[in-house]
Amino acid sequence: MKKLNVGIVGFGTVGQATAQLLCANADLIEARSGVRLAVAAVCRRSPIAAESIPAGARVYADWKELVAAPDVDLVVETMGGNGTAREIVCRSLEAGKPVVTANKSLIASDGDAIFSLAAEKHLPIGIEATTAGGIPIVRALRESACGDRVRNVYGVLNGTVNYILSRMETDGLEFNTALAEAQRAGYAEADPSLDIDGIDAREKLCILARLAFNARLHASDIPTTGIRQISQVDLQYARRLGSRIRLVGSAERLGDGVAVAVRPWLVPEHSMLGKVEGVFNAIFLEGESSGTQMFYGRGAGGAATSTAVVADLIDIAQQMASRNGFGPAQFPGFDGAAILPLAPHGPNCGWYLRLTVRDRSGIIAHVATILAEEQINIDSVLQEPHLPKERLSFVITVEPVSEATLARAVARINQADFMAEPVLLVRVSAG
Amino acid sequence: MKKLNVGIVGFGTVGQATAQLLCANADLIEARSGVRLAVAAVCRRSPIAAESIPAGARVYADWKELVAAPDVDLVVETMGGNGTAREIVCRSLEAGKPVVTANKSLIASDGDAIFSLAAEKHLPIGIEATTAGGIPIVRALRESACGDRVRNVYGVLNGTVNYILSRMETDGLEFNTALAEAQRAGYAEADPSLDIDGIDAREKLCILARLAFNARLHASDIPTTGIRQISQVDLQYARRLGSRIRLVGSAERLGDGVAVAVRPWLVPEHSMLGKVEGVFNAIFLEGESSGTQMFYGRGAGGAATSTAVVADLIDIAQQMASRNGFGPAQFPGFDGAAILPLAPHGPNCGWYLRLTVRDRSGIIAHVATILAEEQINIDSVLQEPHLPKERLSFVITVEPVSEATLARAVARINQADFMAEPVLLVRVSAG
Repeated sequence: MKKLNVGIVGFGTVGQATAQLLCANADLIEARSGVRLAVAAVCRRSPIAAESIPAGARVYADWKELVAAPDVDLVVETMGGNGTAREIVCRSLEAGKPVVTANKSLIASDGDAIFSLAAEKHLPIGIEATTAGGIPIVRALRESACGDRVRNVYGVLNGTVNYILSRMETDGLEFNTALAEAQRAGYAEADPSLDIDGIDAREKLCILARLAFNARLHASDIPTTGIRQISQVDLQYARRLGSRIRLVGSAERLGDGVAVAVRPWLVPEHSMLGKVEGVFNAIFLEGESSGTQMFYGRGAGGAATSTAVVADLIDIAQQMASRNGFGPAQFPGFDGAAILPLAPHGPNCGWYLRLTVRDRSGIIAHVATILAEEQINIDSVLQEPHLPKERLSFVITVEPVSEATLARAVARINQADFMAEPVLLVRVSAG
Repeated sequence: MKKLNVGIVGFGTVGQATAQLLCANADLIEARSGVRLAVAAVCRRSPIAAESIPAGARVYADWKELVAAPDVDLVVETMGGNGTAREIVCRSLEAGKPVVTANKSLIASDGDAIFSLAAEKHLPIGIEATTAGGIPIVRALRESACGDRVRNVYGVLNGTVNYILSRMETDGLEFNTALAEAQRAGYAEADPSLDIDGIDAREKLCILARLAFNARLHASDIPTTGIRQISQVDLQYARRLGSRIRLVGSAERLGDGVAVAVRPWLVPEHSMLGKVEGVFNAIFLEGESSGTQMFYGRGAGGAATSTAVVADLIDIAQQMASRNGFGPAQFPGFDGAAILPLAPHGPNCGWYLRLTVRDRSGIIAHVATILAEEQINIDSVLQEPHLPKERLSFVITVEPVSEATLARAVARINQADFMAEPVLLVRVSAG
């Protein structure tokens, strides 16, 4: 049995939960894996409360000292951000120390350089915690689906957004109120834009798509729409349609390319996606051979995320304990892989269009005429009674149509003088 | 890049699907994992159709020759059964060849000896395909949940049974008709008892419980009730209760022990368990740190199961390609682990009791009196109209109660002369 020492840089929620899990379950981990992991050192820029420091661990103010400490065998990076975090990861690898990171933004943006350095140093990296908290989706894609051809990977990837949508649904809150509640509950940051504008989901989707399709992809190339425009009236219309609204990131093979996007979806209330409530995440994986699989669990939070960090630590420690060398950190879709060919547009699908207008006669006729001219078939028209005439919201759902055709029609609709705001577009999902 | 040769013993559905996947995706596998896998040899007792033999593969009638062939680097055992399969696995390990098996029965019964031999030979074994087809639950338990304390692992583990229950629900079929349909569709064997009596689910649960709780367990010690007694009337009563019936295997920490059982559960129609239809499986995993996770997918079938076989092959091949030695085949709960302490009885839960009686007056009074004397609270009483007096089925659901108390009451009820058959007991699940 080998004892290995972990150093944790970034001692916030995830870093502290990781230390707690390693300390509380050290015997269990040893019994189950054959390795003993101890927290030797932690580092945080702001002062650390004495009671949260693991017994026997040193506290560093300077991460460089932690990384250089001879008794630190493995480095955990739970600091977040891109600048210093990248330095920490690279410096650790250069010092011959494997790294486990929970930093999705770093891996989405700098994964190529980092995996290239890891390959050069012949060192493993753990990134399970970057995506969907404790859900082992990175392992599922890298290992379980390794021999299968992935058709589609999609799901609810941001717990904060899902919490806000769930509160809007169950408690009838308006978006701003639900957001404020999420901030009070500690689920949303003071600056919530990374979550509600879909940036966080986009970075996770970028990692998933790279692993699934074995090709490089810039997160910023993923068309992304958040939930700022979703309002209570949409939740009510969704309910009338037997549906819920979820923010979904999806990457699906389409022709010779892959259609990748983050956007709101209208999903049947009783579908598995519709059942994903609060801070939970769910990721669907469709393989040619495996068929449809779903992975569901807590997508955020220190405790859940720390299980992913610790799983990676154990995996790497087992390699260090029992073998003479590491395998390469094999992450398909990074470092040297081809660029993912993006499909020119998404698949044909149904759409939910919510129009907010200054009411006058002839509006539906005008809109219906445009849709007819673009050969788009209306599936349903819904208008709740007693809405204010100055800001009247109604909904049109349309049958499956190409995104290009839809965009053309919507551009024409948006030009009408009765439009109080641009059309809100939500993709309709059958399952 | 290293090329490794696979030999497949047992060339039925799973063996053939494995060969197909390896051949069709050889380039993809190489790109994603850095290893090249080829099928060098296959073996089956009955003749093999020429078109299903992979290009370049030799066909053996005698598995001993395949195992001994110098160019076979890895052995896949997809033959099933316990006698010869054990010999194949052990002989391969003795010849220094890692093994991947899809044989749940073998691992549930002989896992200790097999993992002991593998540890002695310092060789890895892959068992992902033994449990829930393509769903990576073995990996999730062994690796992802390795540092977490598991509270509970449970789920729908048998696709054949779930197909039968789904057909009974959606098409109003009686059990025997649905079974015959499942046999015609190729989902059930000519002798269906391994499936419908819960034996197959029991073996899978045995493996899951061992991995989750890090302790040994004999499959035959798991209390097991299948679905032979479930009839159309139960599906109708379940529907009136807003519920569905699922065969669930569960292993949950309870006091100092673990309560393990396979039995029918009544689950809410719109719960995730209720949404598991047809041949799909779903496994819930509750960890102290991770919280609730669910893994969902095809639990059987050659294609899905072969993805698990191939994932294990790639994992082992990567070790062979890049390292100087293997780590031990670390399977907590086998070989040398303590025996799992079984809880004396299950958790307090609600129950669905279906009574089939020869109608006369005073039956409900008699039953209600027994329940009251045992201090069991009735939650609901349901009786469909127009049932035959000679074989009248009605249902009582009761509030959460200990299994021992319930068993005492049911024994008394079963003694009544009006009972046409013993009470059917179904556990009521809240979520």
